[in-house]
Amino acid sequence: MSDPRIPIVILGATGMVGQRAIQLLAEHPWFRVGALAASSRSAGRPYREACRWNLDGEPYAGVGDLPVLPCEASALVRGAGARALALSALPSDVARTVEVALAEAGWVVVSNASAFRADPRVPLVIPEVNADHLRLIDRQPWPGALVTNPNCTSTPLTLALAPIHREVGLEAVCAASYQAVSGAGYPGESAWDLLANVRPHPGDEEQKMAAEPKRMLGTLGQNGIVQASFSMSARCVRVPVVDGHLVAAQVRTRSTITPERAASLIRSFDPGLDLPSAPRPTLLVDDRRDRPQPRLDASAGRGMAVTVGRIEPCEVMGLKLFCLAHNTLRGAAGAALLNAELLRSEGYLERLKG
Amino acid sequence: MSDPRIPIVILGATGMVGQRAIQLLAEHPWFRVGALAASSRSAGRPYREACRWNLDGEPYAGVGDLPVLPCEASALVRGAGARALALSALPSDVARTVEVALAEAGWVVVSNASAFRADPRVPLVIPEVNADHLRLIDRQPWPGALVTNPNCTSTPLTLALAPIHREVGLEAVCAASYQAVSGAGYPGESAWDLLANVRPHPGDEEQKMAAEPKRMLGTLGQNGIVQASFSMSARCVRVPVVDGHLVAAQVRTRSTITPERAASLIRSFDPGLDLPSAPRPTLLVDDRRDRPQPRLDASAGRGMAVTVGRIEPCEVMGLKLFCLAHNTLRGAAGAALLNAELLRSEGYLERLKG
Amino acid sequence: MSDPRIPIVILGATGMVGQRAIQLLAEHPWFRVGALAASSRSAGRPYREACRWNLDGEPYAGVGDLPVLPCEASALVRGAGARALALSALPSDVARTVEVALAEAGWVVVSNASAFRADPRVPLVIPEVNADHLRLIDRQPWPGALVTNPNCTSTPLTLALAPIHREVGLEAVCAASYQAVSGAGYPGESAWDLLANVRPHPGDEEQKMAAEPKRMLGTLGQNGIVQASFSMSARCVRVPVVDGHLVAAQVRTRSTITPERAASLIRSFDPGLDLPSAPRPTLLVDDRRDRPQPRLDASAGRGMAVTVGRIEPCEVMGLKLFCLAHNTLRGAAGAALLNAELLRSEGYLERLKG
Amino acid sequence: MSDPRIPIVILGATGMVGQRAIQLLAEHPWFRVGALAASSRSAGRPYREACRWNLDGEPYAGVGDLPVLPCEASALVRGAGARALALSALPSDVARTVEVALAEAGWVVVSNASAFRADPRVPLVIPEVNADHLRLIDRQPWPGALVTNPNCTSTPLTLALAPIHREVGLEAVCAASYQAVSGAGYPGESAWDLLANVRPHPGDEEQKMAAEPKRMLGTLGQNGIVQASFSMSARCVRVPVVDGHLVAAQVRTRSTITPERAASLIRSFDPGLDLPSAPRPTLLVDDRRDRPQPRLDASAGRGMAVTVGRIEPCEVMGLKLFCLAHNTLRGAAGAALLNAELLRSEGYLERLKG
Repeated sequence: MSDPRIPIVILGATGMVGQRAIQLLAEHPWFRVGALAASSRSAGRPYREACRWNLDGEPYAGVGDLPVLPCEASALVRGAGARALALSALPSDVARTVEVALAEAGWVVVSNASAFRADPRVPLVIPEVNADHLRLIDRQPWPGALVTNPNCTSTPLTLALAPIHREVGLEAVCAASYQAVSGAGYPGESAWDLLANVRPHPGDEEQKMAAEPKRMLGTLGQNGIVQASFSMSARCVRVPVVDGHLVAAQVRTRSTITPERAASLIRSFDPGLDLPSAPRPTLLVDDRRDRPQPRLDASAGRGMAVTVGRIEPCEVMGLKLFCLAHNTLRGAAGAALLNAELLRSEGYLERLKG
Repeated sequence: MSDPRIPIVILGATGMVGQRAIQLLAEHPWFRVGALAASSRSAGRPYREACRWNLDGEPYAGVGDLPVLPCEASALVRGAGARALALSALPSDVARTVEVALAEAGWVVVSNASAFRADPRVPLVIPEVNADHLRLIDRQPWPGALVTNPNCTSTPLTLALAPIHREVGLEAVCAASYQAVSGAGYPGESAWDLLANVRPHPGDEEQKMAAEPKRMLGTLGQNGIVQASFSMSARCVRVPVVDGHLVAAQVRTRSTITPERAASLIRSFDPGLDLPSAPRPTLLVDDRRDRPQPRLDASAGRGMAVTVGRIEPCEVMGLKLFCLAHNTLRGAAGAALLNAELLRSEGYLERLKG
Repeated sequence: MSDPRIPIVILGATGMVGQRAIQLLAEHPWFRVGALAASSRSAGRPYREACRWNLDGEPYAGVGDLPVLPCEASALVRGAGARALALSALPSDVARTVEVALAEAGWVVVSNASAFRADPRVPLVIPEVNADHLRLIDRQPWPGALVTNPNCTSTPLTLALAPIHREVGLEAVCAASYQAVSGAGYPGESAWDLLANVRPHPGDEEQKMAAEPKRMLGTLGQNGIVQASFSMSARCVRVPVVDGHLVAAQVRTRSTITPERAASLIRSFDPGLDLPSAPRPTLLVDDRRDRPQPRLDASAGRGMAVTVGRIEPCEVMGLKLFCLAHNTLRGAAGAALLNAELLRSEGYLERLKG
Repeated sequence: MSDPRIPIVILGATGMVGQRAIQLLAEHPWFRVGALAASSRSAGRPYREACRWNLDGEPYAGVGDLPVLPCEASALVRGAGARALALSALPSDVARTVEVALAEAGWVVVSNASAFRADPRVPLVIPEVNADHLRLIDRQPWPGALVTNPNCTSTPLTLALAPIHREVGLEAVCAASYQAVSGAGYPGESAWDLLANVRPHPGDEEQKMAAEPKRMLGTLGQNGIVQASFSMSARCVRVPVVDGHLVAAQVRTRSTITPERAASLIRSFDPGLDLPSAPRPTLLVDDRRDRPQPRLDASAGRGMAVTVGRIEPCEVMGLKLFCLAHNTLRGAAGAALLNAELLRSEGYLERLKG
């Protein structure tokens, strides 16, 4: 039986996000796992030996026998073809050297890594928010293409605020995150640090979270992306939650907006996308006063919907709300896959036929 | 052996805060447990039978044999004397009927309950912040007195911001809390709700947290407390932590202040108090990038110090920081006890000699 | 569109197990929710108002508008018909008065309650283990019928040991449990008690866990069930896990059996059932040295499979292993539903046509 | 002011157990930190830079400025003297090469490492259980000495069973553990693995736990230790607890013993030791049905007491009970320090004067 689905090469296949991507592809209508790549330590071994499978469900999701390729451009081209579609779940430093090299080689890369998210040549895309930014690809100097998705903490906030920004314009956002441990990969955070504890994020997460929404809510101009002109401040804290990043946001808009109007805009948000991983609706509003909660709500829309709650007046900023998304699905593996679906839908995978 | 220490009647002795108060009194230099009172369900039984002891250390902290009195003013006066010092850890609805009745009867009550925190006759006091508000007592219409301490979430924020407010004036504060389960009492939150989860606080915690700092940072005027005139917005979230409330705050001041100056003000904050439960220093600044953390830092200063960290510039508000305090010590039992110490130090316990 | 599926009345519909049952029925091929019953406090209100929905997925699983009936036999007969199939998720004391009354009224009741599990007239059944015990119904003095499923902790152990018992006979079992909080219902355990803690089960769980496997692994004789003649001892401990009871068992058999042979018997265990909720296979053996784990393995076989691991020699008892099942699915709601399926398959629902 | 206390060199000073040892020494009456040693990666740097301090309380416990020595015998002798007392918290593989080399060089080493616990020349000692085994030192071929303490899981079980073994003799023990994450060191277990989960211990913990109690409850004979002749089987499981290992034990004795008699023996157990870290009493019996619990009871006796509960009849083995100890205090750093105290008390530190 030949599988007519388009093969995807998973870069960083043994990590938390790589495993989620493989799990999602097991039942994907358009794509399948084509090849797996990981660090040189894993290369050459069958996936089941190279990988400590961390997720529930069938270990290795049916691809345990695939050999693991090294994450070097030339070896990947040799092993997986001159033109290929890749989903990158690489650490940032590895991504930096490999992703552009693959785009130069003619590959189309959808990346979850942070390495090129701020690169003016590379679109940072959530399909429901800024699919049009994809046209940056037309100006990319490579025969292939490189597209990124945002950080897992920027994602729920950007999606929740998109309809408000379009209607009345954002002026400033204060945010505080409650981030799940899966966002740190595996082994990630030590149990000692997180048991019955919360921990301010010591890295540059706050910078990413402040910068990425402005870029995605910006516009595509002659000279690239023009950032949206609101100010943004974030505090990021890791909490003992398995999956699902919650964000508390206090929001000032350019024109006044009532909480009821904001809720209505969020509820009726319809990006009009018809992609397999795009949930319908994209945004859910939960009216219960103690929601959203990561353990109960992160899986809404098969982990791809964003749940918003407690949309209320704010004495300081005007409006406040909570929003939540599954960080390794909507915030990582599912985000990259959704970008791959958008690329196909927009015709960019034609490049692979070159 | 007669114990020369001043007896305190613990109201709400079987709850989480009551137990902490009893534990603190076991080794207190000025005060001792005089009598215990709880709901009518417990009244008449020895404390060890009425109480499910929830804390570590010696069960019942040496007072297991004391009979439990009912929480009614007349019964309390009969059982514990015409004039007495009481520490109230009562639920708000019970506090509302009992506390003023006791003040009318001549008792001096230090209360952790929220019932009278917003009453213009009643001082809401953190000794290091607004000891002078105690003079409201002089205008109280009762032969006794009633003093309250703030909510456990307002406490670390008010203490951390006090030196900044004094120096440059607060204009606006956006805050988000990470609150421990002990703040909900016992049994409090269900394990089902909190395991590997966080939960927006469904009650009126956000209102309390926004109102109380303005009152405490206000000034005592002719006609009572004049609130400080900054705006304040809070988001409150319960997290799976045992003890210790962390608050992320984004702060706008009337005059510009650098993070370094803010840190210096916090470090050098010295209220000049000489009370047994007052920690020295009051405020700690921890420079480690992943601090403060509730499990490791809540016990600083025997649970009475506030730890501040990550004092940094904020793109939206100017300044941001984290602050943390132990919610049942500095935020409840220890706060009430510290108020009792202040009352003694200021001579207000002379009323008990009437 | 009329729904041809058999209606089931859920008794105890607002609790943790009742909610799971309703969730399972939303997609069940044979059965649907017919009516909902709960305590008199809830009776008369629509389910969405009477119930605090605790599970993920769609709140109220599509039956939020159904009115809640009281849990009294006469009211149930009035409200849901003279003959009906009921799934009881009642507390034991309520079950004791209602379940037999309903069987006397002609209802067929599959109960998860412990009230009648030890009653000699009532079969205690896991379909894959002792479906033949169902024939006790033929001797029941009621026009309806009453069938029970075991405690959520007995379940994984009984299923894991069944193939070994059949082959070589059990002589003695020492067990220790690691039980999830959902087993205590809602609100169940306090977060204060379980955060970063484990807690010996203070109730009679150890007695149930020791008694029930002997009954189910026994045989149906002239005078009722003849218990299997092994001895059994259990220690039960609640752990901070959401769903999934793990059991460590040390096992002495009548004839020697190697771990390899035991694993082979478990792997090849095939009860030959063709029921919608029966997983295939019933028992999984996981060879990874750190499995089974509740968070990752409880959902195997849609929460109805039992996962067994670390089958090894034991210096004291001969054989040791871990086994795991989802406590509110295989151990409660799914167990009762599986018994309902077995009743239908064995023709016992014909009684409802009387 | 010169500190008259005996200096101890901490080997493995940056790890979880090393930090606990340093914390304990800050207030020890007999000993003080003399020098610190860690892996070559840390060597040469001040402790505050080499170490990520993981504990509560004052970071680095006053020795942050001490330079870290490498863990090699010659360098240690050069850096800390020809004769010294060392407390080893080394990983087993490093311990294997260093500890004997130090004993050969004339050092007295109290080790928490597992490397030499089964070595017939080396005493495995809990002072309250088998202080007499220390006399093995007299037969050691080295000018110095090497003494070990048991695994943190063996410790509570051995202490709890010691008085029963002495009275009626153990015949067999089935045990199951509930082990805290601090037992794995730092970073140890991944938060991903342990959040809302429990995990069978994949290593050789069960073998250690079965072997060590037999050795410690054995007797010192002509040819070394004669193991106690009971059989023992353990299941070891990591649980999401910070500190404190709980063990469920089912016990068969040579002569019958009632639970009441067992409780009485445990309560009245008095080893007659007068050492600073030895708690009084050694063993506590808690009668509450849901105790012992790690979070509440691990710190009993400043983390050095063992709490026993639920001493009950067992249908299979005769007797069952739970026991609990703090794993990094009584089970590791405190255990090694207690052995050092015993060595001093028994005169073995005279060797250092050589």
